[in-house]
Amino acid sequence: MGAHQDVPSVTTGLEARMMIRQGQWRRPTAGLAPGYVQANLVVLPRELAYDFLLFAQRNPKPCPVLEVTDAGSPEPRLSAPGADLRTDIPRYRIYRDGNLVEEVTDLKAVWTPDLVAFLLGCSFSFETALLQAGVPVRHIEEGRNVSMFLTSVACVPAGAFSGPLVVTMRPIPAALVPRAVQVSGRFPAVHGAPIHVGDPAALGIHDLGKPDFGDPVTIRNGEVPVFWACGVTPQAVAMHAKPPLMITHAPGHMFITDLRDESLAAC
Amino acid sequence: MGAHQDVPSVTTGLEARMMIRQGQWRRPTAGLAPGYVQANLVVLPRELAYDFLLFAQRNPKPCPVLEVTDAGSPEPRLSAPGADLRTDIPRYRIYRDGNLVEEVTDLKAVWTPDLVAFLLGCSFSFETALLQAGVPVRHIEEGRNVSMFLTSVACVPAGAFSGPLVVTMRPIPAALVPRAVQVSGRFPAVHGAPIHVGDPAALGIHDLGKPDFGDPVTIRNGEVPVFWACGVTPQAVAMHAKPPLMITHAPGHMFITDLRDESLAAC
Repeated sequence: MGAHQDVPSVTTGLEARMMIRQGQWRRPTAGLAPGYVQANLVVLPRELAYDFLLFAQRNPKPCPVLEVTDAGSPEPRLSAPGADLRTDIPRYRIYRDGNLVEEVTDLKAVWTPDLVAFLLGCSFSFETALLQAGVPVRHIEEGRNVSMFLTSVACVPAGAFSGPLVVTMRPIPAALVPRAVQVSGRFPAVHGAPIHVGDPAALGIHDLGKPDFGDPVTIRNGEVPVFWACGVTPQAVAMHAKPPLMITHAPGHMFITDLRDESLAAC
Repeated sequence: MGAHQDVPSVTTGLEARMMIRQGQWRRPTAGLAPGYVQANLVVLPRELAYDFLLFAQRNPKPCPVLEVTDAGSPEPRLSAPGADLRTDIPRYRIYRDGNLVEEVTDLKAVWTPDLVAFLLGCSFSFETALLQAGVPVRHIEEGRNVSMFLTSVACVPAGAFSGPLVVTMRPIPAALVPRAVQVSGRFPAVHGAPIHVGDPAALGIHDLGKPDFGDPVTIRNGEVPVFWACGVTPQAVAMHAKPPLMITHAPGHMFITDLRDESLAAC
């Protein structure tokens, strides 16, 4: 995994965060600090944090919680001690009452002592594992964003939070589907094994060429669509609840932890 | 797994719960409805539920959450739809301000709309798997309670909740230790793989013959002490926080779900 042409050769999560904190990196984080776990961010007021944590407990495949900060603390003490979630992500989105109102490069002006930050596993970690196991990942090959679909499957609701499961789709050669299941299944903290294989209609998906989010990708003869639970689910569900304030990372602009991908392996 | 001499041949979790609800079973539940997941119960006021759920998220090995009920609802809709946690456990313990004040056979008189029930995985499920894999479980052989020890390892605190990790110890023949790790590791929802193998002193345990809870068991030549995170941890930690009200199952008197042990296997 050599550095991309225009990706500086930062080698650790800490180095990447320092570069971001100093304003030297405002772009997506794919390829930065290879091998380090990158995480989705959802920040909510403390009064909604219980329902959101409960939603995650009831829907662990789309909402794998890596860490929850203490209310008011911007430091993820377990996954990146010393980090500051107000400054160490290249780009944030601020939602008020469910509407995107602003995109910012730090949270110094909006952070308050009642905010709780959730770090959720993202698919980068298991995609690295798929590639290392010889399973092709089409959207990476094609330089696109992964295909994402709203499904007809409802998440288990919790308090203020409810909504449909969002999935990612990766076309996998039929003979490699078992390998893809096994390899991703080792990583439950980053969505784990697929939730469905081979029948888009059973998920209420009628056209794989028209994803609800992200880009379409080529599906070749002999390839089977494989569906994983997607980290967009909790963001979509939280937005639907129209909280007075919600903050997320901007798409693709993730938080980079000190954890190594392989440290998340369950077996 | 034939029924014990004095264990009636109830075959499902539902049958066992009905027998308990009707007052026909007030004893420990080991051996009832073999193959069905049995769970620890912790009930707390809603205002403490977030900290407790966060403690569980930060300490998943001692606190594997199977289900959390909606505040006020005594029905675990996901693991045992139709069940009533106020009546379907043979014996309960009621703690006020951290002190055991009463042991009761139902919760009708104490249940209030602000209570939240947590069902936590227990070791029965992985012990069944160990036995089926040919790994001996000494305290079962000797008809005793498992040996439990307070350790010098601190759990990750969360809000009101903090305290030491409690572990169970099972002596395993050295050649079977890898098998014991692999077999129990398939079941993260019921404590999963051991947290330590072979060095009691590293956990601050100085005499395996004097457990802090439960009974001592025989350790034979060639056997290694293997330590698993224990479900007594969250109860001890919750009690230490001296909540105005906490309700648990009485030791050994578990809640029997509709889930099959094997349905918890992660791989």
